[in-house]
Amino acid sequence: MMGCLDYFWEFWNYETPKVIVVKKRNLGVIYRLVQLLILVYFIWYVFIIQKGYQESESGPESSVITKVKGVSRSQHKVWDVEEYVKPPEGGSVFSIITRVQVTSSQTQDTCPEVGIGRAKYFTSLIGYPLPYSFISKVCPFIKRGNTNHPMAPEFTILIKNNIHFPRFRFTKGNVKDNDDSYLKSCTFNETTGLYCPIFKLGFIVEQAGENFTQLAEKGGVIGVIINWNCNLDLPDTMCNPRYSFRRLDPKWAQASSGYNYRFAKYYKHRGKSTRTLIKAYGIRIDVIVHGQAGKFSLIPTIINLATALTSVGVGSFLCDWILLTFMNKNEVYSARKFDQVVGRVPLNGCRWGSSHL
Amino acid sequence: MMGCLDYFWEFWNYETPKVIVVKKRNLGVIYRLVQLLILVYFIWYVFIIQKGYQESESGPESSVITKVKGVSRSQHKVWDVEEYVKPPEGGSVFSIITRVQVTSSQTQDTCPEVGIGRAKYFTSLIGYPLPYSFISKVCPFIKRGNTNHPMAPEFTILIKNNIHFPRFRFTKGNVKDNDDSYLKSCTFNETTGLYCPIFKLGFIVEQAGENFTQLAEKGGVIGVIINWNCNLDLPDTMCNPRYSFRRLDPKWAQASSGYNYRFAKYYKHRGKSTRTLIKAYGIRIDVIVHGQAGKFSLIPTIINLATALTSVGVGSFLCDWILLTFMNKNEVYSARKFDQVVGRVPLNGCRWGSSHL
Amino acid sequence: MMGCLDYFWEFWNYETPKVIVVKKRNLGVIYRLVQLLILVYFIWYVFIIQKGYQESESGPESSVITKVKGVSRSQHKVWDVEEYVKPPEGGSVFSIITRVQVTSSQTQDTCPEVGIGRAKYFTSLIGYPLPYSFISKVCPFIKRGNTNHPMAPEFTILIKNNIHFPRFRFTKGNVKDNDDSYLKSCTFNETTGLYCPIFKLGFIVEQAGENFTQLAEKGGVIGVIINWNCNLDLPDTMCNPRYSFRRLDPKWAQASSGYNYRFAKYYKHRGKSTRTLIKAYGIRIDVIVHGQAGKFSLIPTIINLATALTSVGVGSFLCDWILLTFMNKNEVYSARKFDQVVGRVPLNGCRWGSSHL
Repeated sequence: MMGCLDYFWEFWNYETPKVIVVKKRNLGVIYRLVQLLILVYFIWYVFIIQKGYQESESGPESSVITKVKGVSRSQHKVWDVEEYVKPPEGGSVFSIITRVQVTSSQTQDTCPEVGIGRAKYFTSLIGYPLPYSFISKVCPFIKRGNTNHPMAPEFTILIKNNIHFPRFRFTKGNVKDNDDSYLKSCTFNETTGLYCPIFKLGFIVEQAGENFTQLAEKGGVIGVIINWNCNLDLPDTMCNPRYSFRRLDPKWAQASSGYNYRFAKYYKHRGKSTRTLIKAYGIRIDVIVHGQAGKFSLIPTIINLATALTSVGVGSFLCDWILLTFMNKNEVYSARKFDQVVGRVPLNGCRWGSSHL
Repeated sequence: MMGCLDYFWEFWNYETPKVIVVKKRNLGVIYRLVQLLILVYFIWYVFIIQKGYQESESGPESSVITKVKGVSRSQHKVWDVEEYVKPPEGGSVFSIITRVQVTSSQTQDTCPEVGIGRAKYFTSLIGYPLPYSFISKVCPFIKRGNTNHPMAPEFTILIKNNIHFPRFRFTKGNVKDNDDSYLKSCTFNETTGLYCPIFKLGFIVEQAGENFTQLAEKGGVIGVIINWNCNLDLPDTMCNPRYSFRRLDPKWAQASSGYNYRFAKYYKHRGKSTRTLIKAYGIRIDVIVHGQAGKFSLIPTIINLATALTSVGVGSFLCDWILLTFMNKNEVYSARKFDQVVGRVPLNGCRWGSSHL
Repeated sequence: MMGCLDYFWEFWNYETPKVIVVKKRNLGVIYRLVQLLILVYFIWYVFIIQKGYQESESGPESSVITKVKGVSRSQHKVWDVEEYVKPPEGGSVFSIITRVQVTSSQTQDTCPEVGIGRAKYFTSLIGYPLPYSFISKVCPFIKRGNTNHPMAPEFTILIKNNIHFPRFRFTKGNVKDNDDSYLKSCTFNETTGLYCPIFKLGFIVEQAGENFTQLAEKGGVIGVIINWNCNLDLPDTMCNPRYSFRRLDPKWAQASSGYNYRFAKYYKHRGKSTRTLIKAYGIRIDVIVHGQAGKFSLIPTIINLATALTSVGVGSFLCDWILLTFMNKNEVYSARKFDQVVGRVPLNGCRWGSSHL
């Protein structure tokens, strides 16, 4: 029995494992090679490629402001932004109308409430009797093979995007802040004009691998994906947006392909309320922002380092096995590595010997 | 002192810790059991249940296209999509109007700017004097216990959703791509019709655990949550959307319960601008998409493996303690495990003995 | 050669590494200090600060319902919600119009389709000849230094937000659920009125560090960021929203600064369709919700614990080096720690000695 004091003193002893040194070159080489492999894996793959020393944050706060500019002329009318952009508020999702089917001057019934009527409604209902015949016109402002070429592909879309990574308190926008007249003159370009987020509609559609006239005919949804992949250990100038374009609606499924929606305009005409019904085919632009930022952090670094150290040890499993299985002639090594102890009385071993001398 | 060459040769020696083998069955059983427990935990829980061998990505890019179909008849008017869906563009958030309060024919004042006037406006202002009396009608097209049953619960909502996990370059939609006529005929069903995302409004409300007529009366917000939980180590066909429905607005708080909003329609009537004010109660549908995908990756696998190996070692802490505390009669084991060294001159131990023989 | 049975019995032996105990106080103190440092780091930083024992989820499902109230009077008209809030549906992104430029009564051409005309359109097109002159009025309802102070800063915005963490099945809203009359009377306040999400527009703008009149003049986008940072190991009452306000559009870039958009109202006037063109400057409010929740989980706990244990071992690397480099007078310690084995015949070491006695 020892007293507390002994325990206290023992606590301040330094303990280090006893090690058997096997002077076998070939085994040593295997041992070091295995260790080398593991080290290379960690240094090169985990730390350099996968940036295992960083903590990362994805899904930044994002705000998008869009503005469409341009005008197009169909054979007998002019379309400007107010006509073809819906909704007009310049959010991250908006549609550019490329073709309309109009059912005009549906006159109203007697119910004064909302200023629209019953009977004429049957026009837009499937499986209802049509009590009246209707004038329905189609007014496309994009016609395939039309002499006066549609200007819709020339429409320009300004996409202002601003992100914020709350964990890293990092904010950045996709527009040059300092330069005043820049946005007025510039054109988007992956290399020179990266901070000039002004895209031609035709460019977007083409980048998405679609045929403009077909898309304008049936309508469709194009995603403008802005990807911020930022390594915040580098200067801010290295954290740049990457733009990609993809068609988002299932184009193969005939039944559900294309993009169109219906809305109405309401008039009071000669004291009677009328409604003009518009079925609009268009190109919907969804601006999708995602990103992730990485920055040095102690926790992942230490976890990965500790893992590396542990893994390096794995090499000895292999070599022990080789040593004790193939090189273990008349138990030279096993005898040295393993110090047998059978309970009660120690049979052999130095301490017993020395204590009886 | 050794020269560099010696160090170099030493480097190629193989070192393995010296081990004491205690021939105690009961202790050995405890030791192995502890190790077994830890192994089972890692193999079963970490790797099988928690998929510790995968890296995962959540928050995929997502695009939603919605389309409402159906028509309803109130006692003296017909409502079609153009009337009750706002906004009409078919985005991920839209409201289906189920009840309206109308203040019609507010005539305008002399200010020509926006074509709307002052005086009549006072109707919609609290705390202002009402210079004129107004005709205000309520035109609900859903009435509780109404003879001609409202068709609103029969409205169908098509929700096209398309997701993309950028890290894994994986894209999938919730609509059968190959089949043309499928969407025309199908009905949603967890088992057979999973890729037929056409929901009856009544079905959605019921799934959210709400009473339709009450909801239609006061309005409310229902979330349609689409959850993609994909294990990309399995074939794509195993990665399917899961739909759930939940009421999103606080229904208990009377003060803030329900969902309604106001908008106006503008007319020029006999040369004078008028405005029809509409307070709309409705069911707002928020389509919320979230998901996560997992795929085999080396880093988490190795981290978890290394952790497992380390943890297995923990067993020896316990057993050492048992060994040295309870089984350590006249210090048989501690003497063997611990090789005492007091500074300067070695007092006991084999090396000293052998060297002096 | 041993038989399987021997192997089986050997399996139930307990193996524990042999350890050299160095009775050097100074070295022991260094050893324990290093261990202490590492332990403190893990317990204090990893577990207490960084909550290394929790698994976390970010990006909760979120739904936002907004409602604006208030009325303002310009010199000769009154603006109410229907006029200045677009879109009216009360979603997470909406704009409050603070200034309008109106081009009224653009009469239509002969094309009956959409009820809007060509010629007059040229007004809004740059680079086109202007065939007619137009009356264009500016009707600002916020004027700097105006005698009757604009009431816009007094507009109140109710922001109902409801989040759901699917992994933890945790749902919470930012509105007091139980209390009926609460929302009617309360005002937002970080300390007392945290669950009263009613903000004055002026308060939001001020919190974002902007000048209201300037913002109202040119327009801008303000983000209302709601941050839910929840430790689900604590009671729900500790999981509260935190509000912050930030200007989101790049205010420095003159070219792209401000926020405005164009929309039109359509009339049929004396049998002819006319359009009133409105360029609206306003304050767009983006309600951005993000959050993360943490809850105790076995995997990260065990990974961090195992890492801690491994890291504690690192101390011995240092001390071994000190021991064998500085304290290793006439190889006392190296001789003890390292048990040399040259292939074939063991030269020294106790086992050989004892076996020859």
